[in-house]
Amino acid sequence: MPESFSFQIQARCTQTQARAGVFVTPHGIVETPRFMPVGTLANVKTLTPAQLLDTGAQMVLSNTYHLHLQPGEKIVAAAGGLHKFMGWNGPILTDSGGFQVFSLSEMRTVTEAGVRFRSPHDGAIIELSPERSIEIQNQLGADVIMAFDECPPYPASREDVIAATDRTVRWLERCIAAHNRPEAALFGIVQGGVYPDLRVAAAKKLVEFDLPGYAIGGVSVGEPTDLMEMVVRVTTPILPDHKPRYLMGIGTYREMAQAIASGIDLFDCVIPTRLARHGAALVAGERWNLKNAQFREDFRPLDPSCPCYTCQNFSRAYISHLVRAKELLAYTLLSIHNVTELIRFTTRIRDAILSDRMTDEFGQYLQVDC
Amino acid sequence: MPESFSFQIQARCTQTQARAGVFVTPHGIVETPRFMPVGTLANVKTLTPAQLLDTGAQMVLSNTYHLHLQPGEKIVAAAGGLHKFMGWNGPILTDSGGFQVFSLSEMRTVTEAGVRFRSPHDGAIIELSPERSIEIQNQLGADVIMAFDECPPYPASREDVIAATDRTVRWLERCIAAHNRPEAALFGIVQGGVYPDLRVAAAKKLVEFDLPGYAIGGVSVGEPTDLMEMVVRVTTPILPDHKPRYLMGIGTYREMAQAIASGIDLFDCVIPTRLARHGAALVAGERWNLKNAQFREDFRPLDPSCPCYTCQNFSRAYISHLVRAKELLAYTLLSIHNVTELIRFTTRIRDAILSDRMTDEFGQYLQVDC
Ligand SMILES: [Zn+2]
Ligand SMILES: [Zn+2]
Repeated sequence: MPESFSFQIQARCTQTQARAGVFVTPHGIVETPRFMPVGTLANVKTLTPAQLLDTGAQMVLSNTYHLHLQPGEKIVAAAGGLHKFMGWNGPILTDSGGFQVFSLSEMRTVTEAGVRFRSPHDGAIIELSPERSIEIQNQLGADVIMAFDECPPYPASREDVIAATDRTVRWLERCIAAHNRPEAALFGIVQGGVYPDLRVAAAKKLVEFDLPGYAIGGVSVGEPTDLMEMVVRVTTPILPDHKPRYLMGIGTYREMAQAIASGIDLFDCVIPTRLARHGAALVAGERWNLKNAQFREDFRPLDPSCPCYTCQNFSRAYISHLVRAKELLAYTLLSIHNVTELIRFTTRIRDAILSDRMTDEFGQYLQVDC
Repeated sequence: MPESFSFQIQARCTQTQARAGVFVTPHGIVETPRFMPVGTLANVKTLTPAQLLDTGAQMVLSNTYHLHLQPGEKIVAAAGGLHKFMGWNGPILTDSGGFQVFSLSEMRTVTEAGVRFRSPHDGAIIELSPERSIEIQNQLGADVIMAFDECPPYPASREDVIAATDRTVRWLERCIAAHNRPEAALFGIVQGGVYPDLRVAAAKKLVEFDLPGYAIGGVSVGEPTDLMEMVVRVTTPILPDHKPRYLMGIGTYREMAQAIASGIDLFDCVIPTRLARHGAALVAGERWNLKNAQFREDFRPLDPSCPCYTCQNFSRAYISHLVRAKELLAYTLLSIHNVTELIRFTTRIRDAILSDRMTDEFGQYLQVDC
């Protein structure tokens, strides 16, 4: 692990593989397990950094693909890096662009060299490769950067998944060679689709590179939840115990609780801010549409037990009014609550691990159906 | 003046009619002259109350017409009033709905009794009258409430303006009779179009009612700026010196400076938040479109001399990026700056009055063209 990073496990659950840890980065600590809010375009949608800090956010994710398209990594670098540009002084993780290239871009050509695709902004041809992704990420200046991977869709044939998984390993070698910034920790990404043997084999290969952290990628791409959970259960134990483990793109209560029980430490998901933009609140495991008539004269906070600014100051009736009136403040207030809620879910599990009460308190989420 | 209100003049400009005062309300003080941000639908667009407080806002305006249409005054009253509903514990002023009824609503019928019009939301027939406006405003629970007035358009014939101005005086008597809430101060509104003699006559009649404050209404309805300034110059001296004076709907630097020199204390305008929604910043008297290419790599704050959260934490390049990417945070950051800027303009004039340097420091705004 680079000098300015460390990962220490503070406590372990005696019933599951869950652990509570502290991941130290150059911009501060991340107490794990912890949900990371997503700041795609150098902001977590509708939230100022001050509001974001109040949600309990520690590490924030930002997207290399989107930032490369706008405003471009040169502008971010000229601003002094992503932390300065967006006014967020805590830890930042950037993804590699791999997932977006394979899920969002059209007219792409994949070769061993990399990926060519058309910019959705101006139609220009853009090339991303392991070297280019690392170069862009280094210009953005995040604390944790991700290897450039090929993310197969779901469903995909065994042969296609093998090809993508093997290429991801070869690309990882090129990412490691291109990475030369000691202030950043490069994490590898395990692919392998929903084939458990391919996941295990890929994880074992990646472990040999002795990276400062590992992620499970290529999940939440349309596969059934039980397959995703199976992937996490078989892959996580292969990843080094003393390194942070990150499950990419996951952010529901059940999925996070299950993954934590398998030994995952970090999560990210756009769901809390996306739901907010649709006028929905995450409360007690449910999704409430604040437009519903039942909230018009409900003068209680969204969640009386929630410490967030929204719940401390406003009623469901007020937020319902703002949503109905299409006032942008509605989306800010709902984002504050929703981001706080998901972070709080993971910090409550963390507290339970620290007192070895995880299965007592979160057992409802841990039943395995298959 | 009701018991819980007072207005004290702290200093006077020796060159103009400008004065610096303190208007005390049940929810706190308003140091005048001061710009009031507009919170039409129970929020100043995109700003939380905490952000609003940081702009230097003291009294906030909200709109009876809009709140009556949604969510309705019953919901606001059931929430405990507008202060609790919107989480703003400072002074609030509500207008009477008169201006909106006459400028926004279609298919309206005006009689001596009041105004009938169709709700733009559901087409339902709505009636507003002096009694109804005061009743709604009392349910909303603002500190300062406004008399229900007939606001003639521009241009309007002398006869039409006389009819509207006389009716406004008769309606004021009914407002006074309907007003029975000592925690609210009822302000009268001077109409009279651009006819100076009608303005003076209307102001003299209103003064006889010995109200706790007075407003000049029916301005900024399309008339040339020099006519508006003339109206303020001839009307303001008629209004009692020891009562707060409010110029409705005005919010440009020059217009506010001129009006302050005539003895006006309070202003409101939607311009700072409206400009923000269009990606524009008010800087040094200019309007900057942050989409312009010149800002893409400009890493300075909007205004290095501005103490607002936006200028203290973000660059023009960052805001330009957010505006280009249509990120809602752009509108929040620009609203914070623009509202701060207009309030700061009036507090800087206030400081200049306190040291009797107003004409030295703001003389550029005070030349009379006509
Ligand atoms: Zn909350
Ligand atoms: Zn500013």
